[in-house]
Amino acid sequence: MEQDILNKICEKMRECGKVLLEADRSEVGVDSKAGHGNFVTKYDKMIQKMLEKSLPEIIPEAVFVGEEEDAHSSIEKGLAFIVDPIDGTTNFIRDYHMSCISVGVTKDGEPYMGAVYNPYLDEMFTAIKGHGAFLNGKQIKVTRNETRDAIVIFGTSPYYEELSRQSFDMAYDYLLKAVDVRRSGSAAIDLCNVACGRADIFFELKLSPWDYAAGTIIVTEAGGKVTTVDGGKITLERPCSIKASNGIAE
Amino acid sequence: MEQDILNKICEKMRECGKVLLEADRSEVGVDSKAGHGNFVTKYDKMIQKMLEKSLPEIIPEAVFVGEEEDAHSSIEKGLAFIVDPIDGTTNFIRDYHMSCISVGVTKDGEPYMGAVYNPYLDEMFTAIKGHGAFLNGKQIKVTRNETRDAIVIFGTSPYYEELSRQSFDMAYDYLLKAVDVRRSGSAAIDLCNVACGRADIFFELKLSPWDYAAGTIIVTEAGGKVTTVDGGKITLERPCSIKASNGIAE
Repeated sequence: MEQDILNKICEKMRECGKVLLEADRSEVGVDSKAGHGNFVTKYDKMIQKMLEKSLPEIIPEAVFVGEEEDAHSSIEKGLAFIVDPIDGTTNFIRDYHMSCISVGVTKDGEPYMGAVYNPYLDEMFTAIKGHGAFLNGKQIKVTRNETRDAIVIFGTSPYYEELSRQSFDMAYDYLLKAVDVRRSGSAAIDLCNVACGRADIFFELKLSPWDYAAGTIIVTEAGGKVTTVDGGKITLERPCSIKASNGIAE
Repeated sequence: MEQDILNKICEKMRECGKVLLEADRSEVGVDSKAGHGNFVTKYDKMIQKMLEKSLPEIIPEAVFVGEEEDAHSSIEKGLAFIVDPIDGTTNFIRDYHMSCISVGVTKDGEPYMGAVYNPYLDEMFTAIKGHGAFLNGKQIKVTRNETRDAIVIFGTSPYYEELSRQSFDMAYDYLLKAVDVRRSGSAAIDLCNVACGRADIFFELKLSPWDYAAGTIIVTEAGGKVTTVDGGKITLERPCSIKASNGIAE
């Protein structure tokens, strides 16, 4: 039953992925939003509209929270969709081939289901609470690497310039004590890469719930751990810092 | 004639790309080399062997310089292949989907032809001196973005720990004055991303000729500029620093 619902959500996300791949590169329609390098395109809006229409047909009682809207519903009680129509919008604008569609479902404010679709690699990451995490239907697990063997992905929180020094200092510390660092520009893909063992740690000092609502459940169902950077409990009600790991590397 | 030669090189590289995609993930056979996080796998060696056999059949008079061998021939006179069987080996080990095969051809020590193949996205970047740069046969150009609109990709020179502080300081400066930074772990892909306008600047403080032999000609034929980080002339005879840009962003 839960799996049927998730399959239907994935089907809608694949349709959105097609729109993303076939976007007219000569006119993606870029607008600026609040914060350094914070953009939105007509495709973010178009894909959000598609999902705003199709997802409530799958779970009629769920509220819809999407990145590209001004007021957000409360997710405290019952079911909610938390949607990023394009995670990695700057990458999408530049055709950098590192963007995805992210749909999380929460129950009483807690992660319940998640799906992240990267159309460039045709990779669909999914998870349902208590039922494991999957990449294109095949179960995935985090690594058991310690810090010295870790690949660490970092986010620069570009919209919050006051956090950039601290982000870079943390990334530099990891470069010295781990194998190397990566920076992709899509937090949802980064979380999935930790979940499937392509990396061991991801951190970013400030993200919005639609960036990590789906990725969080995918990491935890793959056996990993998601906390704030200080080790506290994350929230999906407002922005917070995120540290995802295999639970061993620090 | 030159195009025929390059087409034949690309054909051989696609075969290697297939090997890379179909690699047995349970046993990539990792060995350490000199330097922090410097690895080689049995697939690096296997692909180098494939190219060491097939490329001289295309240009019999060319010498062969590959990453995975102990002694390197002089490229000063005549034609030479400069080959990285897997650029982004750490990514390959971790199945991070960001690795490529890179083949440069030099004439009297200068860049002459280049091809970089990313099998994960099935993208073949090519260039011949004086004839433009191409992605899957379609001509590509660098952007005309200034620094404030730039995406800047940086390398961490992980094998040379003494350069990591300076790499990070430069990347941080760019984060403040440009849009954002990226770090992929494959210099050859990074150079191609500058060539096709997905990014505007790439820099790394120390790279080996096989990392940039192909990428350099692809960037310059796309209208970009490749120098050392200090603005000097690069060399393909020994490692040097690399800064590739659209010629406008600094």
